[in-house]
Amino acid sequence: MRTQVGIVGAGPAGLLLSHLLHLRGIDSVVLEARSREYVEQRVRAGVLEQGTVDVLNEAGVGERMRAEGLPHHGIELRYGGAGHRIPFERLVPGRAITVYGQQEVVKDLIARRLADGGKILFDVPDVVPHSLEADPYLTFQGERLDCDVIAGCDGFHGVCRPSIPDGVLSIFQRDYPFAWLGILAQVPPSAEELIYSRGDRGFALHSMRSPEISRFYLQVPPDASLDDWPDERIWAELRARLETVPGFALTEGPIISRDLSAMRSFVAEPMRYGRLYLAGDAAHIVPPTGAKGLNLAVADVRVLTEALAGLYATGSTELLDAYSATCLKRVWRAQHFSWWMTTLLHTFDTDDAYGRRLQTSHLDYVTSSEAAATTLAENYVGLPFDFGAPRD
Amino acid sequence: MRTQVGIVGAGPAGLLLSHLLHLRGIDSVVLEARSREYVEQRVRAGVLEQGTVDVLNEAGVGERMRAEGLPHHGIELRYGGAGHRIPFERLVPGRAITVYGQQEVVKDLIARRLADGGKILFDVPDVVPHSLEADPYLTFQGERLDCDVIAGCDGFHGVCRPSIPDGVLSIFQRDYPFAWLGILAQVPPSAEELIYSRGDRGFALHSMRSPEISRFYLQVPPDASLDDWPDERIWAELRARLETVPGFALTEGPIISRDLSAMRSFVAEPMRYGRLYLAGDAAHIVPPTGAKGLNLAVADVRVLTEALAGLYATGSTELLDAYSATCLKRVWRAQHFSWWMTTLLHTFDTDDAYGRRLQTSHLDYVTSSEAAATTLAENYVGLPFDFGAPRD
Repeated sequence: MRTQVGIVGAGPAGLLLSHLLHLRGIDSVVLEARSREYVEQRVRAGVLEQGTVDVLNEAGVGERMRAEGLPHHGIELRYGGAGHRIPFERLVPGRAITVYGQQEVVKDLIARRLADGGKILFDVPDVVPHSLEADPYLTFQGERLDCDVIAGCDGFHGVCRPSIPDGVLSIFQRDYPFAWLGILAQVPPSAEELIYSRGDRGFALHSMRSPEISRFYLQVPPDASLDDWPDERIWAELRARLETVPGFALTEGPIISRDLSAMRSFVAEPMRYGRLYLAGDAAHIVPPTGAKGLNLAVADVRVLTEALAGLYATGSTELLDAYSATCLKRVWRAQHFSWWMTTLLHTFDTDDAYGRRLQTSHLDYVTSSEAAATTLAENYVGLPFDFGAPRD
Repeated sequence: MRTQVGIVGAGPAGLLLSHLLHLRGIDSVVLEARSREYVEQRVRAGVLEQGTVDVLNEAGVGERMRAEGLPHHGIELRYGGAGHRIPFERLVPGRAITVYGQQEVVKDLIARRLADGGKILFDVPDVVPHSLEADPYLTFQGERLDCDVIAGCDGFHGVCRPSIPDGVLSIFQRDYPFAWLGILAQVPPSAEELIYSRGDRGFALHSMRSPEISRFYLQVPPDASLDDWPDERIWAELRARLETVPGFALTEGPIISRDLSAMRSFVAEPMRYGRLYLAGDAAHIVPPTGAKGLNLAVADVRVLTEALAGLYATGSTELLDAYSATCLKRVWRAQHFSWWMTTLLHTFDTDDAYGRRLQTSHLDYVTSSEAAATTLAENYVGLPFDFGAPRD
């Protein structure tokens, strides 16, 4: 088998890349270790930046997102017994977020690729990249897929990044001393917008996936087990952390899904080795507090599409050679923002009394200064694709 | 002896308080452990916020400051081989800083108090506050000064804060793993504005006191000794840390003063016990990176003056009772800003590769986002006196 771009991973990054390349007349094959059903049900991110929404709409795969996605024009920071809204409509006019589950994006992209005759091979768990320096190819289940370049869209635990020789990548990493326990509940959201709540019991997030499905997160110890968290304990803790302002009551209901996420910051540089280009979680991870993971993957794929289109149109590798540096500007902005949101809102066992007051002072500032609130808002809705300054 | 307000300490806080009270017809006596010559020569802060300048002008003690002070409308952040100006004139129109040494403010205030017949007793090192709950008085050198209230303006190492009974104050503190080596040099500044330089060798600051006197600071180990830093080593290190952009050369000359400052964040709450009110460094310390120490002292004294004027005009203790809470809003804002500037610009031994990149990313953001640059600018020139939001 031969294609122009061999794509490893049918998550949002790999699928969107395959579709965007198709729109430019570039052929690709997507190889995915898991089943179609699995990737279409995998609960992950759910907040799309304005730029992500724009990319999906421009690519013609935004129809269901426009119909079912929930546009949000603000979030609430809740602490000290009061809620403080960050009003996007005033701070970053014309930009908003859309609440739409990652697995819905995946469903839309798979349906579109298949309708367009795209090649997605599911259930191929044994993919191996070869010959990354020149004439690369992928093997799987006795087959061989030759390609011009390989796109590693296979996530943090995928095979592509580890296939790069030792010593090539610089790794930047930070682990946080807590995890997130997430649930989906079959119950209408308890408020119209997301609520980021900080308190002495730990962080909690009120979110949603649809008018009928709520999504909640709790900061929990890093070694927490789902077995420790029966439904009643989850609801009791959510009430304790979220029912901290007068008149707010959680709407409770059946929990239909639960998951634990480690909190980690990670960057591998460069995002390229030879003919292998890494995109999304394969190259970088952020803690979910800033809702940046999926959006970064979309930004990477957008850059990679332009670079590959440039290669096939003119033979020039200029954009491809700049791919890693171009993406890393945005990656590091999102790394900092995600770290910032995380440290702003979580409790840390190592915090002394000074650290707690510093955190309160910081929250007071973000919720009272127009400039400080704008820094949160502009990062949350997503900086323009061409943002950036020289880096050292 | 009897007065209305017994003031301990003839630094900027105590002297300005005495003068502002005088303008309201309130009598005070200032007791100072050191000599007049000592406090008039003591080299400390040198950056006045817009609000501090306004207070001094409105109080009629700004004449020499207006003539000799240097208004600055921006600062430079230097890192990664480039300088990035934070332009106050665009980001916070109408607000600026004035470079004017703290000891010059002290000289102006002493001269004015003495011209107005004010009582300042120098060289009284044995002041002791008594009876803080009611009918307070101060003793020194066999004398007794009765007063309605005591103002503790005697700095971090003064006698007033330790005279408060154990268990009354909550202490919030953080020490930083480095110190600042400061010098005054008899040489014109090497640039028109302050330069905050971050690099792998550590932080350096280019500042000035006048068109003929430069002020420089170097981040040094916390246990550094002035003996370790002969002139040539200081200049060599300043060159290495500041001559990092094309075309910039330090102007060198005789070093006329040198000092070491510990870097510490500290807040004692509340800022009042009985009839004793703490102001300035007696209640709170910030690392000097944000240039906030003197300005906070002025803000405290402004609040205390209004509260005492209220007491004597109407007998109401309402403003006095609110004094600590009113001041602490600004104190914690400055605490956070000073911590933020410090962590943004210094090297930390504990920094891993991720932390260094995070710092670069943060600097890139501050120097490229209008909103982020405004957060620096509005804090640096000083938030309005009535800023603030509810705190938990």
